[in-house]
Amino acid sequence: MIKKTTQEDSKIHNSRLILKTIYDHHSISRVGISRLTGLTRTTVSENVNQFIKESLVIETGTSPSSGGKPAILLRVVDDARHLIGIDLASSEFRGAVVDLRGNILHRIHWPVQDRDGDLALALVYKLIEQLLSLADRPILGIGIGAPGLMDPYQGAALNAVNLDWHALPLGDMLREQFKLPIYIANDSQLAALAEYTFTTQKNITNLILINLSQGVGAGIVLGGKLFYGDNFGAGEIGHVRVMDGGERCRCGNHGCLETLISSRALVKRARDIARQYPQTILNQLSLSPDAIDPEIIFQACEAGDAAVLAMVDEVGRYLGSAIAYLVSALNVNQIVIGGSLARFGDRLIQAVKRQVDQGTLPALARETHIIASDLGEDMVILGAASLLLGQEMGVV
Amino acid sequence: MIKKTTQEDSKIHNSRLILKTIYDHHSISRVGISRLTGLTRTTVSENVNQFIKESLVIETGTSPSSGGKPAILLRVVDDARHLIGIDLASSEFRGAVVDLRGNILHRIHWPVQDRDGDLALALVYKLIEQLLSLADRPILGIGIGAPGLMDPYQGAALNAVNLDWHALPLGDMLREQFKLPIYIANDSQLAALAEYTFTTQKNITNLILINLSQGVGAGIVLGGKLFYGDNFGAGEIGHVRVMDGGERCRCGNHGCLETLISSRALVKRARDIARQYPQTILNQLSLSPDAIDPEIIFQACEAGDAAVLAMVDEVGRYLGSAIAYLVSALNVNQIVIGGSLARFGDRLIQAVKRQVDQGTLPALARETHIIASDLGEDMVILGAASLLLGQEMGVV
Repeated sequence: MIKKTTQEDSKIHNSRLILKTIYDHHSISRVGISRLTGLTRTTVSENVNQFIKESLVIETGTSPSSGGKPAILLRVVDDARHLIGIDLASSEFRGAVVDLRGNILHRIHWPVQDRDGDLALALVYKLIEQLLSLADRPILGIGIGAPGLMDPYQGAALNAVNLDWHALPLGDMLREQFKLPIYIANDSQLAALAEYTFTTQKNITNLILINLSQGVGAGIVLGGKLFYGDNFGAGEIGHVRVMDGGERCRCGNHGCLETLISSRALVKRARDIARQYPQTILNQLSLSPDAIDPEIIFQACEAGDAAVLAMVDEVGRYLGSAIAYLVSALNVNQIVIGGSLARFGDRLIQAVKRQVDQGTLPALARETHIIASDLGEDMVILGAASLLLGQEMGVV
Repeated sequence: MIKKTTQEDSKIHNSRLILKTIYDHHSISRVGISRLTGLTRTTVSENVNQFIKESLVIETGTSPSSGGKPAILLRVVDDARHLIGIDLASSEFRGAVVDLRGNILHRIHWPVQDRDGDLALALVYKLIEQLLSLADRPILGIGIGAPGLMDPYQGAALNAVNLDWHALPLGDMLREQFKLPIYIANDSQLAALAEYTFTTQKNITNLILINLSQGVGAGIVLGGKLFYGDNFGAGEIGHVRVMDGGERCRCGNHGCLETLISSRALVKRARDIARQYPQTILNQLSLSPDAIDPEIIFQACEAGDAAVLAMVDEVGRYLGSAIAYLVSALNVNQIVIGGSLARFGDRLIQAVKRQVDQGTLPALARETHIIASDLGEDMVILGAASLLLGQEMGVV
């Protein structure tokens, strides 16, 4: 049901609108804010004074005079608050202390293996404690990205196979422990939010990020907001069947996209290549086929090993087919490939593009931009920071 | 940029909110409206009086007394306005006069063939004139659904291959001629809107409708609104490549989904079956293989012809694979199959379901409901009516 706007709603809306206006400008005067927002100078001044009191905003000089009295300029203090961002990736837990602009101030990486659900949880507590001890500003909150189905409204891990978490009320548990705002969402969804917030041009409101790592997932931003889906599972493209009678997947089905193009799948394939073709560069770079890891595959790709290049092209074909469905269904023009395998760069992008061009209505394919993400391994952490900045402050 | 709400915006918002509240209830009192909307009784009364003056609302008796003075009840007059809905389908142009509840009052079907763009346009004018002459209430506006890329904001036909229209400012032309509000959108998108407005439960806000007819398209409702995509091409799943080296499609690519599962493709396949298997029921139902049309295929399916059933199952497999991508990407639980081929009913739905179950993350597949639409051949017309009701009156 549509609701009437209350006075309290308006106050919060106005306060956020003013802070966002300052955040979006390098420096701006009270009059400038009033002009841009249409709010009265009294409302602007009251709110700005409050922000200054909270050390969120400072006065930073005066504007060049244009006749009248020069206006005092305001800007947001980038490290007025610290944010804790966490990425519970499959192979390692990562965390960082981040400022209000997404600058990473401190970073922790912890390799994790053979964990059960309780062990994983204990590690999360420890990681947060360590990060909090590194932060030296008031903490805005903690944002967490994890693979699997995460309920961002309740802050619950509904189903995370890797972490062995099922219907875990992680948000409540962490709020209880740390007395801070806690936000939790799917890692690929957060990566899309990071791409949207920190690197995409302002005129783009729709975006799909493909997270091509140990798993394969996507995050979808529509109309400037993450689209979560009915059960928070939007973007779970890693489990679409692409090969009848294919390999069994962790999800229980067979022939899922993830079984063919995840970094796990590629390492397996590269080891097979190394065993089959003694002359492959992979064998020059690795002591034995069993020692081949993603890093060695990247090096062999850069060195131009034919079998590895063919493997990358094949990843591009499978991924391109999946992207053709996404583009056809949503007609979203900005497609960004991120995650550890985005390092295959232009070779991968070109293979994807060929497939999208052949497999999508030409009028849509023509408008589609497929690029590799620049965010690197921090993308989930930055997405968690973006979620916090949006929910707690309304500035992104 | 977020905008401040102006007083004029509020007035329009309140007026629409009040009308929608009356529309959503069979009968409701002014006090009831005030209670539900949080608006003052003065605001409610002023607006209601205006609606009564415009014959949109009437007083319809009194509520059972609960102590005090019995309250006068209000309801929307269902045929206070007439709407013109038009479906520019591939094989025929359809139009109808519709009331404010989506009841169809008059219907026109015109078979059309071998037309060029100008001829098609002349037919649209004629169809509208005929429909206007059938309506006997003030006309709210004209809504048009057509295959291809339609810009609903400008009311322009950007690219409609079947109609031979390219960058045609149809909305401007019709507004000029008929002096009425004109809305134009893609036919499958409108079908989804109709399904959402007229048949879906109120608690469902996301829905995908697959339009399986002469072409194959989808319409996607997210958060209660049609999602159009960056170039208004959202839902163009008929042109995803599903067969390498497949048949050439109207779009210029090869092996598109549409070349395999559209009614056009099925007629072709059924004729091949009839030539190959003399004993097929198709040959009992048709004078010659060349005379087989969709109707005969439906009858052969109902009679249990093995080759036709296998064909329907295959359609279900291809469609199911496409739906698996949609469900995986968007995690939308309500999937509705409409269009002329929805008549294959349960056989088709079951084949689709099997494929979705095998090709989607089990946690998402479990929540997915795949059903056949009940709207029949009126779905695009009803979608056009819904677009009008939403844009012009704010009631749906």
